[in-house]
Amino acid sequence: MTELRTLKVALLGCGNVGAQVARILLDDAEMLASRAGARLELAGIAVRNLDAPRDVELPRGLFTTDAETLVKDADLVIELMGGIEPARTLILTAMRNGACVVTGNKALVAKDGPTLHEEADKAGVQLSYEAAVAGAIPILRPIRDSLSGDRISRVLGIVNGTTNFILDQMDSTGAQFADALAEAQRLGYAEADPTADVEGHDAASKAAILASLSFHTRFSLDDVYCEGISSVTAADIAAAKDAGFVIKLLAIAEKLGPAAGTEKDTETADGDTGVSVRVHPTLLPREHPLAAVHGAFNAVFVEAENAGELMFYGQGAGGKPTASAVMGDLISAARSIVLGGPGRAETTTGHVVALPITSAVTSYYIGLDVADQPGVLAKIARLFAEHGVSIEIMRQTIHRDADSNIESAELRIVTHRASEAALAATVEAVKGLDVINSVTSVLRVEGV
Amino acid sequence: MTELRTLKVALLGCGNVGAQVARILLDDAEMLASRAGARLELAGIAVRNLDAPRDVELPRGLFTTDAETLVKDADLVIELMGGIEPARTLILTAMRNGACVVTGNKALVAKDGPTLHEEADKAGVQLSYEAAVAGAIPILRPIRDSLSGDRISRVLGIVNGTTNFILDQMDSTGAQFADALAEAQRLGYAEADPTADVEGHDAASKAAILASLSFHTRFSLDDVYCEGISSVTAADIAAAKDAGFVIKLLAIAEKLGPAAGTEKDTETADGDTGVSVRVHPTLLPREHPLAAVHGAFNAVFVEAENAGELMFYGQGAGGKPTASAVMGDLISAARSIVLGGPGRAETTTGHVVALPITSAVTSYYIGLDVADQPGVLAKIARLFAEHGVSIEIMRQTIHRDADSNIESAELRIVTHRASEAALAATVEAVKGLDVINSVTSVLRVEGV
Repeated sequence: MTELRTLKVALLGCGNVGAQVARILLDDAEMLASRAGARLELAGIAVRNLDAPRDVELPRGLFTTDAETLVKDADLVIELMGGIEPARTLILTAMRNGACVVTGNKALVAKDGPTLHEEADKAGVQLSYEAAVAGAIPILRPIRDSLSGDRISRVLGIVNGTTNFILDQMDSTGAQFADALAEAQRLGYAEADPTADVEGHDAASKAAILASLSFHTRFSLDDVYCEGISSVTAADIAAAKDAGFVIKLLAIAEKLGPAAGTEKDTETADGDTGVSVRVHPTLLPREHPLAAVHGAFNAVFVEAENAGELMFYGQGAGGKPTASAVMGDLISAARSIVLGGPGRAETTTGHVVALPITSAVTSYYIGLDVADQPGVLAKIARLFAEHGVSIEIMRQTIHRDADSNIESAELRIVTHRASEAALAATVEAVKGLDVINSVTSVLRVEGV
Repeated sequence: MTELRTLKVALLGCGNVGAQVARILLDDAEMLASRAGARLELAGIAVRNLDAPRDVELPRGLFTTDAETLVKDADLVIELMGGIEPARTLILTAMRNGACVVTGNKALVAKDGPTLHEEADKAGVQLSYEAAVAGAIPILRPIRDSLSGDRISRVLGIVNGTTNFILDQMDSTGAQFADALAEAQRLGYAEADPTADVEGHDAASKAAILASLSFHTRFSLDDVYCEGISSVTAADIAAAKDAGFVIKLLAIAEKLGPAAGTEKDTETADGDTGVSVRVHPTLLPREHPLAAVHGAFNAVFVEAENAGELMFYGQGAGGKPTASAVMGDLISAARSIVLGGPGRAETTTGHVVALPITSAVTSYYIGLDVADQPGVLAKIARLFAEHGVSIEIMRQTIHRDADSNIESAELRIVTHRASEAALAATVEAVKGLDVINSVTSVLRVEGV
């Protein structure tokens, strides 16, 4: 082992993931050397505050506030600081200096992936970010490499543990969103400012990355339609449960085939006309494999033309699990340096366009508060038919208030697959009907 | 696209997987070229019988019976003939001629992996076999690459669809093994001679491959303890069900830490003393993620030091799913040729030894037919304690025959983790007790 070359590793950031990465580099040096074919020497850890408390005890001498100098002398740079700047500039500097970069920065990759990849290609270095999506779960590499001879048609992912924990709590206890969020915060599953998680922004970054790899085209955060879970009510969950569904926040990337009448010539080499990339609360049948993914676990469900249905399941966050994904990328990058050659890169020959949410095609669940009069159901059904939205299930429940003796009726509709545009027009028209008191919920349904 | 170089692909074998691979190579040439960075030209398909019926209509001119000539002129060779010879010689010839090889031949890789890998290293070509384990599920590459910076402690796999279908049938219908097997044969899930599947040989090959990659050491079929499902009875399934378990045929590869008193110096770099690789019917709690894997689906559950628990789920067999895995390997091999350099190889620096089944440590389920006398439970419990096997659950059910008025008692025991050796000694001693009518079943338990 003494004749192995040494590669210098710069670590940027020392939060809960960074601290675990540092620990592994220091404690498992022999194992890592045997796997990489080179010694990986932790040259330094760049942090903002030298005195901040760390999850792991680390040699004081490794810390520095001068990230730029650290990066310029490294063969491998691990970026775990998060945020756009200075992470972006440091990564670009590292690559221009010939270093391979491993990052877990989903926001940066989703926002500025094309620039980063362009620089990596120009410099002939590896840029990898398995840790950016679904923590420990190997999902980006399987999509990029293992499924490279197949056509992915759809990816459905539970990629945010915070929202999955909250929805799980609401489902199992009947709690309202605010109470489940407070519980998640108390247990450390949600941050003090939970916006990025509960409004779906974190999942949207991951959706952009999953879509880019699945469809061989670089999508950015701007291509993702995003709707969080803060408006999901206990009543929505209860109604979904009653109908045999569970509500999950899904990151969805889905290929939509050529529309009727489209000339074959206008298609891309892959035969697609576009990809719908979106994040929103989604009803899933309770038998769907993703429905059984509880708490802070993540899972990604992939449908491909030949492979069929695949699911990848594991821990989506946390210091050690995410560090495992970082180390996998690091060993791969180190081996590419040892072996020479540019190593495996992503292909971006798909050239498919991101479609607006109005082009998305899915099933819908619609809850209506209606007047209990004869002919109401027929009126509503006719209106759906006129808008080209076909009804799969329609169920009415009558409530009678014993005191006032006033009857009200709750109508629950699950549609067949329809476009968002057609559905939106239908819902608008339904609201105009005199027999409708209110539209209580409109939620998308997958997996039926 | 016109300036791309062309790589010649030789296909050996045209069964249900081979036919799909040929179809994809012919139909999706543009897509494959964009992914590989080279045109993949199907140069020929070697078969034994030119006139045999095929799953897919393919140009007659592609077929040949002269595999050797076909192989010598190829850049990439796909071996899907199965069996040891002539597959082995053709693969070695291909690699010596500088071709990368993709194979789905689990029996050959498990039997003779070291020879094949040695030749691949010598020739500087890629040898890959994702299709050999769990069909479409990307599992070998994630273990090799994504988890290369982590320490895998255990792999539990449902890797044989035939046995999973049979056990599932027995579990859901109460059928005996023979009837469930007949049903599987009727539906095409089991072959006329089902030995390789039901006796666990197919799963054992896959266990050897999974263990080799997980523990960075080449294990062969000889290192695998193998026990099939033909002796599992409807009564075993019913008793397991009653106790909250399901019986699955698992391929298990598990690291066993240093035994008490072992000097740290005797450990390998990875800190292991050995690996237990085995295939046997196993009780799993019904809440375990693997318990929900039904029918012909496969899944591999991986436990790693940092990543924690991961599961990979999908279709474990069939022409199209398995062809997807073959194509992923083929694109990777093609890219390694286009980019130059030897590409990513397996590491085999683990140097751990395969342990005999007597060293395996697991929990056990033991069914006993005992005399209904006072003091029986105490006698049995004392005997277990004397052998160092600790009891977790002990449950007695009394049956009374109304006619004869004879009482018999059924005793079900679940132990804590114990070594196979200790368990075997305990069971032998139990048989010698005068209060024991018979030992009705001894089954291993995982996931508790």
